[in-house]
Amino acid sequence: MSSQDNHKLCMIPGPVEFHEDVLTSMSTPATSHVSPSFIPVFGESIELLRKLFLTEKGQPFIVSGSGTLGWDMVSSNLVEPDEDALVLNTGYFGDSFAECLKVYGANVVEVKAEIGEATTLQEVSDALSTKSFKVITITHVDTSTGVLADVKGISEVVKKQSPNTLIIVDGVCSVGCEEIRFDEWGIDVALTASQKAIGVPPGLSILVASERAIQVFKNRKAPIPSYYASWAHWLPIMNAYESRKGMYFATPPVQLIYALNTSLKQITSIPLETRFEQHKKASNFIKNTVESLGLKFVPKHREAAANGMTAVYYPDGIQPADLLQKVASYNVVIAGGLHRAIATKYFRIGHMGISVTEPERKHLDNVIQALTSSLKELGYSGK
Amino acid sequence: MSSQDNHKLCMIPGPVEFHEDVLTSMSTPATSHVSPSFIPVFGESIELLRKLFLTEKGQPFIVSGSGTLGWDMVSSNLVEPDEDALVLNTGYFGDSFAECLKVYGANVVEVKAEIGEATTLQEVSDALSTKSFKVITITHVDTSTGVLADVKGISEVVKKQSPNTLIIVDGVCSVGCEEIRFDEWGIDVALTASQKAIGVPPGLSILVASERAIQVFKNRKAPIPSYYASWAHWLPIMNAYESRKGMYFATPPVQLIYALNTSLKQITSIPLETRFEQHKKASNFIKNTVESLGLKFVPKHREAAANGMTAVYYPDGIQPADLLQKVASYNVVIAGGLHRAIATKYFRIGHMGISVTEPERKHLDNVIQALTSSLKELGYSGK
Repeated sequence: MSSQDNHKLCMIPGPVEFHEDVLTSMSTPATSHVSPSFIPVFGESIELLRKLFLTEKGQPFIVSGSGTLGWDMVSSNLVEPDEDALVLNTGYFGDSFAECLKVYGANVVEVKAEIGEATTLQEVSDALSTKSFKVITITHVDTSTGVLADVKGISEVVKKQSPNTLIIVDGVCSVGCEEIRFDEWGIDVALTASQKAIGVPPGLSILVASERAIQVFKNRKAPIPSYYASWAHWLPIMNAYESRKGMYFATPPVQLIYALNTSLKQITSIPLETRFEQHKKASNFIKNTVESLGLKFVPKHREAAANGMTAVYYPDGIQPADLLQKVASYNVVIAGGLHRAIATKYFRIGHMGISVTEPERKHLDNVIQALTSSLKELGYSGK
Repeated sequence: MSSQDNHKLCMIPGPVEFHEDVLTSMSTPATSHVSPSFIPVFGESIELLRKLFLTEKGQPFIVSGSGTLGWDMVSSNLVEPDEDALVLNTGYFGDSFAECLKVYGANVVEVKAEIGEATTLQEVSDALSTKSFKVITITHVDTSTGVLADVKGISEVVKKQSPNTLIIVDGVCSVGCEEIRFDEWGIDVALTASQKAIGVPPGLSILVASERAIQVFKNRKAPIPSYYASWAHWLPIMNAYESRKGMYFATPPVQLIYALNTSLKQITSIPLETRFEQHKKASNFIKNTVESLGLKFVPKHREAAANGMTAVYYPDGIQPADLLQKVASYNVVIAGGLHRAIATKYFRIGHMGISVTEPERKHLDNVIQALTSSLKELGYSGK
């Protein structure tokens, strides 16, 4: 398996390209999960997550699992059966979060945006006026559409109109590339995964909960309807490792946590403001180029489009498989569509992590070159 | 982080030492989870698991998570609220599996063995005569005590006395080192994790379900009370990848699956019978040496002791921390106790995977040497 030799540049909206040092950490030899060499790595990673999420006292969780598991953690720890949840739905991931909440007994009200549209503050306000919601969920970037939610604006509406409602942000495709200020914006849970802008291979469900969310969890009346996702198991583990003690609930994914530690140190070594700006700039470069080719974006408004990815409709006459294969022939991988209603009509480019922060790698140039050449070869003449 | 340089031989009952090729696979560069290079790797891994579990038609699941997640999969997919579950408890992991089943609404009856004892077939028969159990769970090796269950014998009792009861084997510390014959013994679910005898870093929950178990799942009446652990989501994914198609529910842990593929190919390249014998022989070597030092095992009967690990009481006068630290000074890591009632009274040595199958690495000699020298230095004079 000489996968290194045939490596194609991975420019999908996650997994993203990984730094060499992160990959080296992935191949750390066998290490006990309670060894004196691993415990401080886990402990420090918890602390570094606070820096990344811009929180003083938020409680990070690092759990073996896909990002999806974060929905189970929110739904099973914070929402009790028959409580009301408001889901702002801007694509596939809103549908799924709603489904997950229902599994755990929540009454879900969805505000569904048209494909490519973001939820307006007025819609949020209208929805909040109908009921007293236990939680509101916001997909910061719906990876299926590339729509960016105005988390700050929405939070302000919630704080004003329904201050007891917990604000839950699905930041899978945002943490590490979009501006997200946990404390300043009053977020109660932000959940993410390792393989997007955090720049670590998939396999970690990462979440930060506010002190208020932890209190709500501790005061819940109904038993927690999950075993693996229960914070009752994970909270003591996080506290133990942060205070540099080993403790066992389930064997942590040691190698992934070494990789996370390496990446978080890289990320937090420069101001986050710089990182946000780099992603905006990269996004503008990609989007301006795509626009100049005469292609149309899935997000209908540039200000509500993600900075870590770009979702683009195929031009007329271009077959999805043809374009993806042609781009791959240039050793670059981009992604097809995911939103069920338009899956075959658009493609997605990821621009996160080292592809953005280390321009000397020329990843952005490469993906643009591969895309432009491929379209030309397939007979697309532009606008 | 030069963890490679300071590596201590990891002889705990998981994570175990990993083959260099497995670690190389762990550092596979970013690869799309639906790319033509990854799909066959995932698909083949599913097929190779059937070989490892000795099953023709069992349905493997490979899910991002710790081994613990396997309990949630069993409890939420196969047991409906208020159904009866019989838990054969030989240590910490029996306690926890019982707790997990209760979370999902099962009525749990436990047959608790004394510490170091295995459940007898008579006890199983007696328990089965009291109720009609939906499932019986057997911890094949309880890593907290090193007690080995007679899965074959227990299965025969169940088949005879309660043929509708699903037989669930927690094989976290057995699959890959203990004889386990999924089809021949009539097992319905065997669950395990990546970091023990399968020889892959932690982060994969691995499970095989019988055709009968899948039917029970498909015919269940109550809704599945989990989102992430629901087979309704994972079964289509496993079917898709096995038929060499990509499909999305949650981003699979690509690098861990590359590593799994590498390890499964190594494991299945020799007959499993040879592998079982190698582990028995290694276990005898360790246990005979430990016995010759005058130390006492946690398992009370040699025939009911695990072949992939050895649990040993500290001799009088030796402090736990002293012995573990002394052994570590020889660059070898062994584990302390885990069973709550005796945690500070015993230690555990793992002997699985390449430490057993590749004797030229001298891992067994090294751990024995470190242990013997450490005891001597601490003033233990033997029997």
